[in-house]
Amino acid sequence: MDTLQQQFGNLIRRRRHATGLGQEALADKAGLHRTHVSLLERGKRMPSLLVIKKLAAALETTMASLMEELEEDASDEEPPRRKKADR
Amino acid sequence: MDTLQQQFGNLIRRRRHATGLGQEALADKAGLHRTHVSLLERGKRMPSLLVIKKLAAALETTMASLMEELEEDASDEEPPRRKKADR
Repeated sequence: MDTLQQQFGNLIRRRRHATGLGQEALADKAGLHRTHVSLLERGKRMPSLLVIKKLAAALETTMASLMEELEEDASDEEPPRRKKADR
Repeated sequence: MDTLQQQFGNLIRRRRHATGLGQEALADKAGLHRTHVSLLERGKRMPSLLVIKKLAAALETTMASLMEELEEDASDEEPPRRKKADR
């Protein structure tokens, strides 16, 4: 299972691709260093609330929208519950 | 205007009061140190994504719900736009 920060990284990369921005363009727009964006996308850094806010603004979305998608991704990855009949 | 971290702190305190938890009970439930929760509520620390996730779970809500409320609070605080007639 992906870690929380890997899930966040995947989400940011997906949204960035959807907007047609390169990593450097996203970094510039968000006021972050390009290396920081690269590390975040690769799940190597845990973002702070401020970084989430800056990325949401640069991706022209809201923090709530990003968190909603993140929580959907996480719930898709829950291990399947065993049915009673399988026990 | 409150800073982002002060807005987040106010939000957590409000939600904590709504659930009837004390700071220590919230900290225990979230797996955070009580001092950390106290600093967060007072706007003295910027939370990471992981801390937001832990607090959301302990408050029996979602990160999306917290972010939505945070963004509403922030937009309430935008300086009022001048009407054309005032210019």
